[in-house]
Amino acid sequence: MESAESFSPLVVLELVSDTQEGAITWLLQRIRDKQRDGGAELLVEQLGPGVEDQEKQNPNLFLIGASLQRLLSGAEDLGLFKQFNDGSMRSFTCANKHNFKDFQGDGDGFLSMAECQYIIKHELDTLRAKDETHIPGYTQAKLYPGKSIIRRLLSKGIMVQMFPLHEKEELKRLSFSWFKKVKLSHQPLDDIRHYFGEGQALYFGFLEYFTFALIPMALIGVPYYLFDWEDYDKYVVFAVFNLIWCTVILELWKRCSATLAYHWGTLSRKKAFEEPRPGFHGVLGFNPVTGREEPLYPNAKRQLRIYCVSVPFVLLCLYLSLYVMMIYFQMEGWALSVHDEDPTFWTGILLFIPSIIYAVVIEIMNLIYRYAAEFLTEWENHRLESSYQNHLVLKVLVFNFFNCFASLFYIAFAMQDMALLRQSLATLLITSQILNQFMEAFLPYWLQRRRNKKMIRKVKKTTLEDRALPLEEQVRLEADMSTYLGTFDDYLELFLLFGYVSLFSCVYPLAAVLVVLNNITEVYSDAFKMCRVFKRPFSDPAANIGVWQLAFEAMSVIAVVTNCALIGMSPQVKSYFPESEMQLILWTVAIEHSLLALKFILAFLIPDVPKPIQIELAKLEFESLEALKKKVNSYFVFTFQFFHIS
Amino acid sequence: MESAESFSPLVVLELVSDTQEGAITWLLQRIRDKQRDGGAELLVEQLGPGVEDQEKQNPNLFLIGASLQRLLSGAEDLGLFKQFNDGSMRSFTCANKHNFKDFQGDGDGFLSMAECQYIIKHELDTLRAKDETHIPGYTQAKLYPGKSIIRRLLSKGIMVQMFPLHEKEELKRLSFSWFKKVKLSHQPLDDIRHYFGEGQALYFGFLEYFTFALIPMALIGVPYYLFDWEDYDKYVVFAVFNLIWCTVILELWKRCSATLAYHWGTLSRKKAFEEPRPGFHGVLGFNPVTGREEPLYPNAKRQLRIYCVSVPFVLLCLYLSLYVMMIYFQMEGWALSVHDEDPTFWTGILLFIPSIIYAVVIEIMNLIYRYAAEFLTEWENHRLESSYQNHLVLKVLVFNFFNCFASLFYIAFAMQDMALLRQSLATLLITSQILNQFMEAFLPYWLQRRRNKKMIRKVKKTTLEDRALPLEEQVRLEADMSTYLGTFDDYLELFLLFGYVSLFSCVYPLAAVLVVLNNITEVYSDAFKMCRVFKRPFSDPAANIGVWQLAFEAMSVIAVVTNCALIGMSPQVKSYFPESEMQLILWTVAIEHSLLALKFILAFLIPDVPKPIQIELAKLEFESLEALKKKVNSYFVFTFQFFHIS
Repeated sequence: MESAESFSPLVVLELVSDTQEGAITWLLQRIRDKQRDGGAELLVEQLGPGVEDQEKQNPNLFLIGASLQRLLSGAEDLGLFKQFNDGSMRSFTCANKHNFKDFQGDGDGFLSMAECQYIIKHELDTLRAKDETHIPGYTQAKLYPGKSIIRRLLSKGIMVQMFPLHEKEELKRLSFSWFKKVKLSHQPLDDIRHYFGEGQALYFGFLEYFTFALIPMALIGVPYYLFDWEDYDKYVVFAVFNLIWCTVILELWKRCSATLAYHWGTLSRKKAFEEPRPGFHGVLGFNPVTGREEPLYPNAKRQLRIYCVSVPFVLLCLYLSLYVMMIYFQMEGWALSVHDEDPTFWTGILLFIPSIIYAVVIEIMNLIYRYAAEFLTEWENHRLESSYQNHLVLKVLVFNFFNCFASLFYIAFAMQDMALLRQSLATLLITSQILNQFMEAFLPYWLQRRRNKKMIRKVKKTTLEDRALPLEEQVRLEADMSTYLGTFDDYLELFLLFGYVSLFSCVYPLAAVLVVLNNITEVYSDAFKMCRVFKRPFSDPAANIGVWQLAFEAMSVIAVVTNCALIGMSPQVKSYFPESEMQLILWTVAIEHSLLALKFILAFLIPDVPKPIQIELAKLEFESLEALKKKVNSYFVFTFQFFHIS
Repeated sequence: MESAESFSPLVVLELVSDTQEGAITWLLQRIRDKQRDGGAELLVEQLGPGVEDQEKQNPNLFLIGASLQRLLSGAEDLGLFKQFNDGSMRSFTCANKHNFKDFQGDGDGFLSMAECQYIIKHELDTLRAKDETHIPGYTQAKLYPGKSIIRRLLSKGIMVQMFPLHEKEELKRLSFSWFKKVKLSHQPLDDIRHYFGEGQALYFGFLEYFTFALIPMALIGVPYYLFDWEDYDKYVVFAVFNLIWCTVILELWKRCSATLAYHWGTLSRKKAFEEPRPGFHGVLGFNPVTGREEPLYPNAKRQLRIYCVSVPFVLLCLYLSLYVMMIYFQMEGWALSVHDEDPTFWTGILLFIPSIIYAVVIEIMNLIYRYAAEFLTEWENHRLESSYQNHLVLKVLVFNFFNCFASLFYIAFAMQDMALLRQSLATLLITSQILNQFMEAFLPYWLQRRRNKKMIRKVKKTTLEDRALPLEEQVRLEADMSTYLGTFDDYLELFLLFGYVSLFSCVYPLAAVLVVLNNITEVYSDAFKMCRVFKRPFSDPAANIGVWQLAFEAMSVIAVVTNCALIGMSPQVKSYFPESEMQLILWTVAIEHSLLALKFILAFLIPDVPKPIQIELAKLEFESLEALKKKVNSYFVFTFQFFHIS
């Protein structure tokens, strides 16, 4: 084909090996077609065969790239924000390209590779069917005008995957500065963002922020642990500290996140209109917003599925989790009775066994529930990816919270046994950390070794970082790598750790220390898995950590209530109200209410965006208002004409 | 002058009678100048002399109007939303004017008079100094490039006032349908909005909504009052009802308000960049956002004033209010002891005297505090009107809440005397209602009569509605009317009534009935005062009731807590926990927490904007995104060029 035109491959598209020839020709044609003919105007090339095993290899791997001009106009379509000459961040436009800071010559190197890949993904995703009724050669793969072709190929299983290529040199540099040298310094967040995109970089930023925020707590925790080991009464100071800490760090994180997002240009970027997610199905109709033909699914039906199936299912799971908890308490009681009857070293160890088993069971239940929740949310048939994510996160969070913390709440408030709480918390925390590190660090290592063996058998070349690895082998190697499923599980883990620390660390001050240690290894294992284990993910231009901010804030509200209750229950405080327990409770409740009120007022008073960035944003807003005022009529005329024609 | 050009006067501008001739000539010239020369391009005419008393009359009254073309281009500048041909609301543009629904011929009657007046006000407000260093003839009235001339004239006292004219015919029609016939039907909100603007219409909409929302409560309250007069124990059902009621109505109001604002075109209108408020002063500098020269006042200084003066002052006032409350309780005790010693009919009445005096004192203190708060907030020197308003509302709300409700809280929770609570609540409510109605209905009536007498003496003509009243007299008559100071006091009154009902109506079920009656008279007295007593106010394109929504929601949170506590204290509930008061409190607290959580979840789940309007908004958003995507480069090029030139 037109392989004479040289291009640097950015994205790989893999079709199943037995794809109909007609479908391939048609697809490539549509990708290459000019934009005015409804094509994506990208460059495509079929990947040449690898070194050996040619009959076993999938021949249908395609490399996709684009001309520089095409990429720049794509960046404009997407409204990417880049740094302007005057230092502010502005939406990129081709007409104005020379006023952007890093635009030199014809603009080579102006867009990072991750941005180019994101642009290509967007262009492929919005490549729409014209008058085709089905994919050539596949009569069951229906198309209608406006349907995204790539999404149909994916949902019908004709396309295996689409992924961006790694950039060997840059990956090497990034790995080196990120996790290869053990050092006490910040992560290279800008480089991470440059390579993996804003969503990833914000996760690592949050992980780092959370770790640093825990350090004061860990510092207070250590002497507490060393000198007051058996004195359960002294935890009031710690609880008060806890309470302020968890409110303040979340508020400050919002400001940090806004600063990062502003400098990365995602803070004020307008979201594009959200397309239905690939799995969404329904009867063809007209979308009331766009007027385009697309599948519609009645909202009432979805609500019915949510309230009549999903909610009862979640409640059932919660009940099951409660049941398991009760079994744990029976085991605990049995172990205690054995130990009390005839206390030896082994019965002392036996005391820890129920907690450990319970911790493992919790992890397993969380895992199984995770799959069930995904299945159920998929079945609820949400139109938008964001709505799917919100429902999934809500389901998973409620269950995980209940599953992990119910026993601790029961011990703390129903049994009021602080010694058991401490023991149980420690066991849960340590066991789940060990399990998680195993899943995140050992498993990847093992997968890596397995892949290496395979590769050695194949091409006698070892890793991706080898400079001499030919492109054909690199692409096939990456196609074999596991797919990174997003930051969901990483955030969930942080959420639970935040819960352990903010809710109960006053009775077990070492919790913060353990979480800090865990987070440090987490940075390394997560960095390792991003760079070595998984396919490069498409960057996702996030402006904040999204629904997780809300989840963490909800947890911090619960933490205020819990800590107040723990303070009220402490013997130290009780001694102030020797005559009347009622007085004590009323005071505790009153203080708790004022703390909650204070928390909301604080959240209201502390601006979410730091002042200098507010000014920058107001500047842009003002400029666009002024420009509108000066009668840019053409813009309005165009808007209306366009919609009256179309 | 150019009085040959006929025009309908819209706005009146009054300068002090001894204004320098030079200043007048200069001002009129600036108002008449073409826009490209930095003028406002409006029509101005000096008002002719009245019938008599010519030497006493102020000659410096000017009528301002504008050509139809000027008004339409002003509407475009302001981004007014009007109904489009397809029924949706769109930002008006001249280029596209024929596609708007009510645009006929040359567009006469397309803009309502209130809109025209708002446009003229905006054009006058944004009439800026060019290279003048001061107002001609007033060397102390400094100007600098970009300073709003009208604001400087106002702040230096050269301009007395600027107000829009009433429209006699329309006012007559509106008065008739609004309050002249007593009927059980909705208010003509669309007509109110048409005549007074969206801010006013939203207030009356809210007043009506609130009254209708109270009716179920009033209906439950009457039998309660009739049959259970002395049975204080039965209030649990009522408290539960209260609790649900106040959450639900506020959520539903948000949806109502969004629907109204959408149909009035204010929901998605972009706010213009806010100019400094007239009273704001500081050292000249460059605004970091606009780059224009304007007074700057360091934020740190303002914070210092707020935290070192305002906050202590508010606390002092609260302490004073507490002190007065204590005096009230002493009086109450004294009256009770007199009654107990020798109970007669007169001592029975004496029992009510302290409450009545206290209610009157509360009203007086509120009034005095109101002025102090205004003075203090003015002194804090806020740059923006919105920030000034927020600080004023916050100050006034905190004090009013404390002043009105502290005694009730004390009686309910410290003294736990439900009979006294009922009596005190009834007296406070009834006294404050009588006082308010006096201030709002009788006072206006009296003012009206006084003005009429003056007019009769002057021109033997009676009211504004007289068709034959010449323009000269009408203008002078209106210039004499009081100025309407905005909806602040009206909302504040509703806020306190909402407090009485939602906090304590379970112990005095007639409260809702009283508030309903009050609201009905309130509609009439407010309508009367808007149409007859006050100058017509400039319309204010509000999209919602602003900070008051937040205030009412805060009150409803407090109502949940209060009602839960009242339920927990009821003998009925106490009888369920005969053995342990602690159990009772713990249960009450637990239920209260879950209700609060439920409240927040409900507020989160119920969308603030009804679905059909969400779709309409999404449609507009989508269209503008699509238009941007289709490369309206000219717009961007223009934006950047403009800012590189300027």
